[in-house]
Amino acid sequence: MSETGSVGIVQKQVFELPRYRTVGGASLSDLRIGYQTYGRLSPRRDNTILVCHHFSGTSHVAGRYAPDDPEPGFWDGIIGPGKALDTERYFIIATDTLCNLDVGPAGTAVSTGPASIDPATGRPYGMRFPLLVTEDFVHVQRALLEGLGIGRLAAVAGPSGGSIQSLVWGVTYPERMRRIIAVIPPGLALPAYSVAQFDTWCAPIRLDPAWNGGDYYAGPRPEQGLRRALELITLNALHFDILEQGIGRAWGEPGRDPASSWQARYRVQDQIAEIAAQRAAAIDPNALLYMAKAFQQYDIRDRLERLQAPVLLMPAASDVILPPLLAEQALRQLKAAGRAAELVTIPGNGGHLDGLNRIAEVQEAIRDFLV
Amino acid sequence: MSETGSVGIVQKQVFELPRYRTVGGASLSDLRIGYQTYGRLSPRRDNTILVCHHFSGTSHVAGRYAPDDPEPGFWDGIIGPGKALDTERYFIIATDTLCNLDVGPAGTAVSTGPASIDPATGRPYGMRFPLLVTEDFVHVQRALLEGLGIGRLAAVAGPSGGSIQSLVWGVTYPERMRRIIAVIPPGLALPAYSVAQFDTWCAPIRLDPAWNGGDYYAGPRPEQGLRRALELITLNALHFDILEQGIGRAWGEPGRDPASSWQARYRVQDQIAEIAAQRAAAIDPNALLYMAKAFQQYDIRDRLERLQAPVLLMPAASDVILPPLLAEQALRQLKAAGRAAELVTIPGNGGHLDGLNRIAEVQEAIRDFLV
Repeated sequence: MSETGSVGIVQKQVFELPRYRTVGGASLSDLRIGYQTYGRLSPRRDNTILVCHHFSGTSHVAGRYAPDDPEPGFWDGIIGPGKALDTERYFIIATDTLCNLDVGPAGTAVSTGPASIDPATGRPYGMRFPLLVTEDFVHVQRALLEGLGIGRLAAVAGPSGGSIQSLVWGVTYPERMRRIIAVIPPGLALPAYSVAQFDTWCAPIRLDPAWNGGDYYAGPRPEQGLRRALELITLNALHFDILEQGIGRAWGEPGRDPASSWQARYRVQDQIAEIAAQRAAAIDPNALLYMAKAFQQYDIRDRLERLQAPVLLMPAASDVILPPLLAEQALRQLKAAGRAAELVTIPGNGGHLDGLNRIAEVQEAIRDFLV
Repeated sequence: MSETGSVGIVQKQVFELPRYRTVGGASLSDLRIGYQTYGRLSPRRDNTILVCHHFSGTSHVAGRYAPDDPEPGFWDGIIGPGKALDTERYFIIATDTLCNLDVGPAGTAVSTGPASIDPATGRPYGMRFPLLVTEDFVHVQRALLEGLGIGRLAAVAGPSGGSIQSLVWGVTYPERMRRIIAVIPPGLALPAYSVAQFDTWCAPIRLDPAWNGGDYYAGPRPEQGLRRALELITLNALHFDILEQGIGRAWGEPGRDPASSWQARYRVQDQIAEIAAQRAAAIDPNALLYMAKAFQQYDIRDRLERLQAPVLLMPAASDVILPPLLAEQALRQLKAAGRAAELVTIPGNGGHLDGLNRIAEVQEAIRDFLV
């Protein structure tokens, strides 16, 4: 793990909050979220960048948990010594959100959510867990930062759902950051199209009889519904070009024409299914429903006058799920409200995922923006 | 029904084929498909335009079944006296495909498919119905045309899945048409992305326990799975802009904040659900699976040298499900193969559905191409 620019091995840490009242008015006790840090906090405590994660992401934003981990954290391309989020200069902190998805059997997140034990009953909350909004994620992140003695941030940044958190930070604690970097963002409110799209992601889980109204923790979980949901999410985050070039219309098995039977398939069908099956092992199905509901509420359009920090919007050119037109619209809205904002497009043909996979290609723009 | 340019009232007719052998080698007997005609066959029988329908469409391409029908057929905008497909000049014929979706309780299609009675058992085929490919639809359409004494067509045209049928016509019976009009087409083969996308449409039906391996005709059908499938299909055929302008983030019920409970929703969620519920009444769930499997096999790239008729490709500018880049690629492939082809884009912000709803806006280009 001595490659240049690598942050090396990283460990999950845990923040505990004895009591928290949600924006919706519910009381939660013994709340826990995981977090990871990179670099060192400066003596003046003014060099922190908070990195927020996407819908199915975690605080694992860079580095590896073990030397043989196949993949590093999702923004490893820009977090490390000499990279845009330079760990020799900045103290990078990332948290697992509340109701994080990644608390399934193979999950790595630490996060209070529907799979947590309800102290009132001694059993998992299931769908009795209170509804959350992004502001709840932000308030708990702020409590963690306060605990570490960190006041003002050098920046808040994140891709997709992480851009939602970053922008909500900007209107919730406007004096607390110098810069906001919103990568592959949905704009300043979740569009109607995306609200409906989140429902299509949730539908397979609810259709699976094993979901059982969310009470599956004592029995088999809705594995098939979860996999179908993740197949849809995986596909939505890609783009025509990258699948065409990478797989095309190759058959799943040589000599087995997909026209010949229901079982015979194209390789792309098998690959999407494999990706989803792998991801499913880490994910709690109820948490997916809660996260979708939280992000469906995202709308800061009526709070733009609170925003102080300049915003960098970074759509991905081939994104079909949150296409560049949404960031372009946000740029116009921010400027119309007299806010400082700029836009830089991430090149590529990989779809929404380019906001993770090709983020290093816009490294210079991020570095310049942070100055 | 005396509006200018209207074809007025139309009736479904039925074509019967005593015996048909599928491309896959299965024997079907007493096969039936519905069809509708507009205008009159010329004495020289050389003025026929075959219009093929999309995935969930039928032969109802123009006119109304009754004066109070709320909507006319899907291409009413270009079919009628004085329109691009001028019924005073052309004889327009449209057929229901084999395994057409629209054979549910409120369906209007006539179509042999999985809901038909298997003469060998006296019960519906269900998933024992043979797999079909687009070439099967085309062969049966040709048998119908033969029966009417129609040899060469003035044109074959259709949107989306209808463009697939039109292009398969072009390589299967190349000498049989003067022109091919492929509207909102997937290109010359179904892209890997779309192959996987069809699976996401089918997944909710298969997840519904009422689907029961396709044997639901004697009991309750997989209504919830079908509705979830149709919600996804409905959303995929739209675009961000049209939903944002038409509905935006309005609440389903005034005063009932969607953040407050699982039951409280945005209006867009209710509207998509309503559209899907209405469509579901017409549709047989198994037929949806069969049609998806048939279109997944679409690939004419290795038969381009057979193609004789010039091709007009008409993508919709805001299409996210079959974006313009697919038609642009097809144009390059056709030209590289020495075929005559041109491309005209349908303007608008309504997504894939603009291939139906805004087709009249490219009327002149179609008229010019048919000359």
